[in-house]
Amino acid sequence: MDAYIAVDAGGTQIRAALFQAGAKNIEPLNIQRLPTRSKPQAFDVLTSTIEAVWPQDMRVRGIGVAVPGPLDPVTGIISFTANISDWENFPLKEKLETYFNVPAAVGNDANMAALGEWKYGAGVGHQNLIYITISTGIGSGIISDGRLLLGHRGLAGELGHITVIPENGPMCGCGKRGHLESVASGTGIARYVTEQLANGRTSLLTKAQPNAREIGEAARQGDELSIEAYQRAGTYLGRSFADCLHIFNPSILILGGGVTKSADLFFEAMHAAIESSVISPDYTTGLTITFPALGDSAGLQGARSLAEISFS
Amino acid sequence: MDAYIAVDAGGTQIRAALFQAGAKNIEPLNIQRLPTRSKPQAFDVLTSTIEAVWPQDMRVRGIGVAVPGPLDPVTGIISFTANISDWENFPLKEKLETYFNVPAAVGNDANMAALGEWKYGAGVGHQNLIYITISTGIGSGIISDGRLLLGHRGLAGELGHITVIPENGPMCGCGKRGHLESVASGTGIARYVTEQLANGRTSLLTKAQPNAREIGEAARQGDELSIEAYQRAGTYLGRSFADCLHIFNPSILILGGGVTKSADLFFEAMHAAIESSVISPDYTTGLTITFPALGDSAGLQGARSLAEISFS
Repeated sequence: MDAYIAVDAGGTQIRAALFQAGAKNIEPLNIQRLPTRSKPQAFDVLTSTIEAVWPQDMRVRGIGVAVPGPLDPVTGIISFTANISDWENFPLKEKLETYFNVPAAVGNDANMAALGEWKYGAGVGHQNLIYITISTGIGSGIISDGRLLLGHRGLAGELGHITVIPENGPMCGCGKRGHLESVASGTGIARYVTEQLANGRTSLLTKAQPNAREIGEAARQGDELSIEAYQRAGTYLGRSFADCLHIFNPSILILGGGVTKSADLFFEAMHAAIESSVISPDYTTGLTITFPALGDSAGLQGARSLAEISFS
Repeated sequence: MDAYIAVDAGGTQIRAALFQAGAKNIEPLNIQRLPTRSKPQAFDVLTSTIEAVWPQDMRVRGIGVAVPGPLDPVTGIISFTANISDWENFPLKEKLETYFNVPAAVGNDANMAALGEWKYGAGVGHQNLIYITISTGIGSGIISDGRLLLGHRGLAGELGHITVIPENGPMCGCGKRGHLESVASGTGIARYVTEQLANGRTSLLTKAQPNAREIGEAARQGDELSIEAYQRAGTYLGRSFADCLHIFNPSILILGGGVTKSADLFFEAMHAAIESSVISPDYTTGLTITFPALGDSAGLQGARSLAEISFS
């Protein structure tokens, strides 16, 4: 029997899971976790986690790895990751292949979550899918005409960096201004409220710098500023989603990340903005807008799918 | 010997051309044109043009057709076209296949121009290409990871309808507000100048409603308003192109259409806006920004490529 090994190398833990080739269910045969470590043991922790699930009686066709941060999907070289400081220009694919003597493929975490939701989650059966995770930042992965969108150097699919406030927009996590992430992420929502409070807006909020979750709670208690902050984010998200509909004509949008726990606070504004921006009802007719089905295992299922696609 | 027939069904003329299968040059074996007619003879003109190039001694593998207007690339049903009024919900693919008894494929003109430039023009050798034509409107076609981007219902690739002025933007050709086309097309440039003149701005322009070409001429004579109008369009184009770089990570942008004859007036502002919006130099390093190589035969070469891809 053959098997694949999937790895989600996250910022806090590394998970490795063993899947039987051809299996359709999402439960692995074996799964192990270890806390992620930075310099100098990150790769050692990764190999230990993989060894812990390595099968005795099956042939491993290949290893798929989801990694936070930009990377080249062809060479498998990681540009950098936020929490693993010695993975800078790190040839992860080559290192794994040398160590385990099986082929390996790597993908960034948002792309892998999109792939996971497509193959095993909320997007099964669709061929044009956009996955967006809205939390501290905004990440995304795109399945277009049945393939993961990668681009020339594997850097495609960054919907969080669509410019939405062209003049003097807020600073984005990337260092440029007015991107969707700077306005509609949890960070963006919190910044807007903090600015409004500093400008003397009255609010039920007592902290000077509330976070998105606290703003959500205040909104549900009727706080006008907090309600407005989420609606504002929804409007910007909706406009950018309309851009995405025109660009990709998807049949499904999957919205994940912590901010979507407050979907009740921004979905109406989001839908209104989509409707007021979209050039034809053909783009929204039959469009599914939904939530992820896989929770925090989307990246792991994506890494599994990547291995299946790459080494079938 | 085998052959393909390519057709560009434009608003003013229909061109049909015969290409030998496997040929790499852009010169057809035979080409014919007829003026486009609307009701009720549009399809008759199309078939006559194709019959005029039909070979006596070669087998036709298939017909590819470029059509202005939205269509379903799978069913080959045209939703509508601006200048051919009886092609509304028109099953062009099926009609052609019945009439000629060979397979047919249809694509919209911007997608076909992208395909043509990719296979036979300025984009040869690239796998991630964005083609944008800036004239009265803004059309586009996208090659992503070596395939024409189509989307769920074939409506993908509409970069002209990215929202760039979110609040109270100008009316777009599509009926919605603030899209790139409404701001940076020839029509958008002319509207901006017309509005500024109506507001009392001084200018060398003597007409109350100059067109984009006249504004370009005035700009070259030093007219400040006209210079500003093109720079403004360049800034909006550059921001949207940065969005496209983040979304598609292409290796080449091909900019066509009448407005690019005034590239000298807006390219500097366009490049500055790209640089100020892009999240990493990795998106622009090695990026080619260039003009089409095929002129008005891009659509025809694209229809040929579509036939080659579909019926090889």
